[in-house]
Amino acid sequence: MNVGFAGLGQMGIEIARNLIKAGNQVTVFNRTRGRAEKLAGEGARIAETPIALAEAPIVITMLADDHAVEDIMFSGLLDRLPRGSLHISMSTISVALSQRLAAAHQERGQHYLAAPVFGRPEAAAAAKLFIVAAGPRDQFDHCAELFSAIGQRTFYVGAEAHRANVIKLSGNFLIASMLESLGEAVALVRKHGIEAREYIDLITSTLFTAPVYKNYGSIIAEERYTPAGFRLRLGLKDVRLALAAAEAVACPMPVASVMRDHYLSGIARGMEDKDWSAIAQVVAQDAGLK
Amino acid sequence: MNVGFAGLGQMGIEIARNLIKAGNQVTVFNRTRGRAEKLAGEGARIAETPIALAEAPIVITMLADDHAVEDIMFSGLLDRLPRGSLHISMSTISVALSQRLAAAHQERGQHYLAAPVFGRPEAAAAAKLFIVAAGPRDQFDHCAELFSAIGQRTFYVGAEAHRANVIKLSGNFLIASMLESLGEAVALVRKHGIEAREYIDLITSTLFTAPVYKNYGSIIAEERYTPAGFRLRLGLKDVRLALAAAEAVACPMPVASVMRDHYLSGIARGMEDKDWSAIAQVVAQDAGLK
Amino acid sequence: MNVGFAGLGQMGIEIARNLIKAGNQVTVFNRTRGRAEKLAGEGARIAETPIALAEAPIVITMLADDHAVEDIMFSGLLDRLPRGSLHISMSTISVALSQRLAAAHQERGQHYLAAPVFGRPEAAAAAKLFIVAAGPRDQFDHCAELFSAIGQRTFYVGAEAHRANVIKLSGNFLIASMLESLGEAVALVRKHGIEAREYIDLITSTLFTAPVYKNYGSIIAEERYTPAGFRLRLGLKDVRLALAAAEAVACPMPVASVMRDHYLSGIARGMEDKDWSAIAQVVAQDAGLK
Amino acid sequence: MNVGFAGLGQMGIEIARNLIKAGNQVTVFNRTRGRAEKLAGEGARIAETPIALAEAPIVITMLADDHAVEDIMFSGLLDRLPRGSLHISMSTISVALSQRLAAAHQERGQHYLAAPVFGRPEAAAAAKLFIVAAGPRDQFDHCAELFSAIGQRTFYVGAEAHRANVIKLSGNFLIASMLESLGEAVALVRKHGIEAREYIDLITSTLFTAPVYKNYGSIIAEERYTPAGFRLRLGLKDVRLALAAAEAVACPMPVASVMRDHYLSGIARGMEDKDWSAIAQVVAQDAGLK
Repeated sequence: MNVGFAGLGQMGIEIARNLIKAGNQVTVFNRTRGRAEKLAGEGARIAETPIALAEAPIVITMLADDHAVEDIMFSGLLDRLPRGSLHISMSTISVALSQRLAAAHQERGQHYLAAPVFGRPEAAAAAKLFIVAAGPRDQFDHCAELFSAIGQRTFYVGAEAHRANVIKLSGNFLIASMLESLGEAVALVRKHGIEAREYIDLITSTLFTAPVYKNYGSIIAEERYTPAGFRLRLGLKDVRLALAAAEAVACPMPVASVMRDHYLSGIARGMEDKDWSAIAQVVAQDAGLK
Repeated sequence: MNVGFAGLGQMGIEIARNLIKAGNQVTVFNRTRGRAEKLAGEGARIAETPIALAEAPIVITMLADDHAVEDIMFSGLLDRLPRGSLHISMSTISVALSQRLAAAHQERGQHYLAAPVFGRPEAAAAAKLFIVAAGPRDQFDHCAELFSAIGQRTFYVGAEAHRANVIKLSGNFLIASMLESLGEAVALVRKHGIEAREYIDLITSTLFTAPVYKNYGSIIAEERYTPAGFRLRLGLKDVRLALAAAEAVACPMPVASVMRDHYLSGIARGMEDKDWSAIAQVVAQDAGLK
Repeated sequence: MNVGFAGLGQMGIEIARNLIKAGNQVTVFNRTRGRAEKLAGEGARIAETPIALAEAPIVITMLADDHAVEDIMFSGLLDRLPRGSLHISMSTISVALSQRLAAAHQERGQHYLAAPVFGRPEAAAAAKLFIVAAGPRDQFDHCAELFSAIGQRTFYVGAEAHRANVIKLSGNFLIASMLESLGEAVALVRKHGIEAREYIDLITSTLFTAPVYKNYGSIIAEERYTPAGFRLRLGLKDVRLALAAAEAVACPMPVASVMRDHYLSGIARGMEDKDWSAIAQVVAQDAGLK
Repeated sequence: MNVGFAGLGQMGIEIARNLIKAGNQVTVFNRTRGRAEKLAGEGARIAETPIALAEAPIVITMLADDHAVEDIMFSGLLDRLPRGSLHISMSTISVALSQRLAAAHQERGQHYLAAPVFGRPEAAAAAKLFIVAAGPRDQFDHCAELFSAIGQRTFYVGAEAHRANVIKLSGNFLIASMLESLGEAVALVRKHGIEAREYIDLITSTLFTAPVYKNYGSIIAEERYTPAGFRLRLGLKDVRLALAAAEAVACPMPVASVMRDHYLSGIARGMEDKDWSAIAQVVAQDAGLK
């Protein structure tokens, strides 16, 4: 298929590469051209401007946040896309922006799928992402091979595109809340004289054996918060988006509120570029540890 | 070995049975004699009073809560135990009571191990419990075969007995916080029109594949809160014990505080005998669902 | 002085009237013209469009929320105001919008004061408002007589206009937190069998004799939440603005987070048009009361 | 009247002195005899042991906490009091202990009033306390002149003595929550560059003019947390008692939970002997201030 692709960050570059490998014709755009050139040698065409992506019937965006998506879409690309074209938004964006994109595309006779992904860059490289997609069923079916080129499984969650974004945000909330809870448990046992490392080994050999507990448990036990796999300020962003999505439907989320406060405190303490699991360090400091 | 055993609840009866099967001579006491008689046919002797347990050099208690342990221990048994005997407390009790027991036994020249377990009645029946033990190392080593008769793995976490209780309480806190977070995530997606069942299937096929997420996720998705596997009022008790253990060492645990409030609200709404995962129902009602 | 005035809600109409009484020449604009006509008989001129306000050298806005201010200012009026003119924003708006207005006016060589007020419609009618003003000192001094025509006291809090908005939002936060706390205290005593009315009388005769405690205490004791003096959904709006102002400077506000969740729950329970003190009813329901 | 009086702390000594001044015959007991001797010159008799207080038909206790009251009452005094005698407990104690005292006195044919007070030592000295009393009406009426000797007003709140304790604890909760909220508001404005002193002056000249806001507002603005008027660890104790009273009736109090966590964090940061208004300092530090 002929695909335009915007956003070659850690995730985007791997996704684009897998699309190329699968035989698609991919035109890429990235604000810093260097990353686009990497892919040129692997068969990608380079678009000099976002608007140039409009020549492909399918445009995929995989960008950092709402602002980046707005910059690309509402500064020309949206109006340049032909009727009948399809935009697949894979970025972790707000529910509100996803709804706004759905409306804007519909007005212009264009199609829109929200298709955020679960998985880290390694999973993206291995085409092992999980994709949560929503939007018109026929458009989704039309793109099945694109999704299978980049992920291990795709979930179609309905015709209203923003639902996929809700699910993505809820997933990040669940991971964050696991970090917060581990942080509280570790603070409790440390203050009773138990080594964090010993405790994490015990808990992840018994109650919580999943890799996500083992990996983050190790980071917390060793206070190995740099380099960040996912920055604390992005953790705050995702919790904020979850809270906004919840506020839009009058849904209290007290644990999300607790985490928002902890992430803010982390930023106030200068941890914004640490890994988001450093929320456990905020909790530890509040308990007088260190 | 010659063992006295008090407390034949759902967990205790399975543990005692496995001790018998392993060839130990077990004398059992239970407040309602009927349950003791079940074991008589399998080789147990029946003690008519708790004090009679003092004839065995090792006494194990597996009782419902602090009150039950205090009733048994401080109404005669403690003073009747000979010097050099050993008490193994497997109940989920407060850190404060465990410390008090350690001191009381030491005063009397007796030994004390705290050895709470992780696992449900099925795991107890299958001798698949995880045991977290603390207290004098030589006493622990002396009992190794008892622990291996009832569990799949035993962790020794140091000479201070109450540490084992801290770890047990922290583990229950981690499970409860998972329930709370799942409840908030499910409320969020339901209010956006997504089916709870569909959502839980998605999340537990991708991010959280552990059985504990699948099992409790199903209960929450289907709102199958009765019959209770573990009652909500016991969930409150355990969160309360975790908060008390945290308070003793000046450790804030904001997520535990949130859950305490939700469990109290659950009780105020008449849910005390539902499963403790009904904390998700409190959250759903606060979001106006149902 | 010659003043344009936009926004004749419950507060705005009283403020505009007092400006007229003090001898100023006031041109008013209101989306629903009826309210403007009321003032015509008292000496006001009526502007048919917001843009017509630009003929006065000073424009005051007293509007419901950010959207209303954006609608008026960014749809022509801002660009029509001459260099050297002054905009006084008295609305309770976000800190972010106040900063944006400050920048937009500066770019155009216009002046800007933020001057939100404390006080209810009765205080506005009696020219007893408290005004918290910030922006260029010379502009503030220039308007001293306007402020003294509408309020009992004006506080100048510095050259950065948005500071006045921060203070306004912090004040509403303090009132809301008083309501939340009263709600929790009343729930506690009611569940112990004490009458709310008796309790409020006692507390407001002893510890908290201020009118704000007496008035809101009575409303809560009698559950007299309709008609609303200030709607619950506006309470949520103001707490949200306080949280946003706090987030912008990395400041956790856990009590504000608790209230946000309670207001959301109130909306989910259908209370959005009750008085914002009905946060106490949310708290009471969570305790199983009623 | 003939009164035994135990507990000559800052509050107790003033109350006892006012009872003497009013012509009562007062026998005092204090653990450190020095304070009792001060009163001897003013007409008090000194009891060498708590048990000696039993000679008076009315015994008043004004002690630091539950432990102090238990020590005095359950180590002999309770059993020594004659049938028909009256115990008035003015200490700030738990609801549970008050209920236990009520039962213990009733078993012995003795009478019991709970009569905690609102007011600081200066108010006690000036006989300006507010007294909240509960218990048998006839006993209350019988003591009217005692109460009027020490306070400006007495409230009778019913036959169940513990209700008076619930009200006392709720009052301290309300003051603590005011401190927490002021702390959050001050953190917010400080991070926006506004001086705490200026802000407190503004707020307490407008919205919150009550002395309690002015006094504590000044302490917070000037961070004058030593010497403590009321220590932070006692603040924690009172919040804990409020939470326990709430838990006993299944009443969530989320703001109390927030404060509990902040007080614990204050203790973990070494602030336990600062004034309880230093909860505002915990909040400020969490916001990265100082």
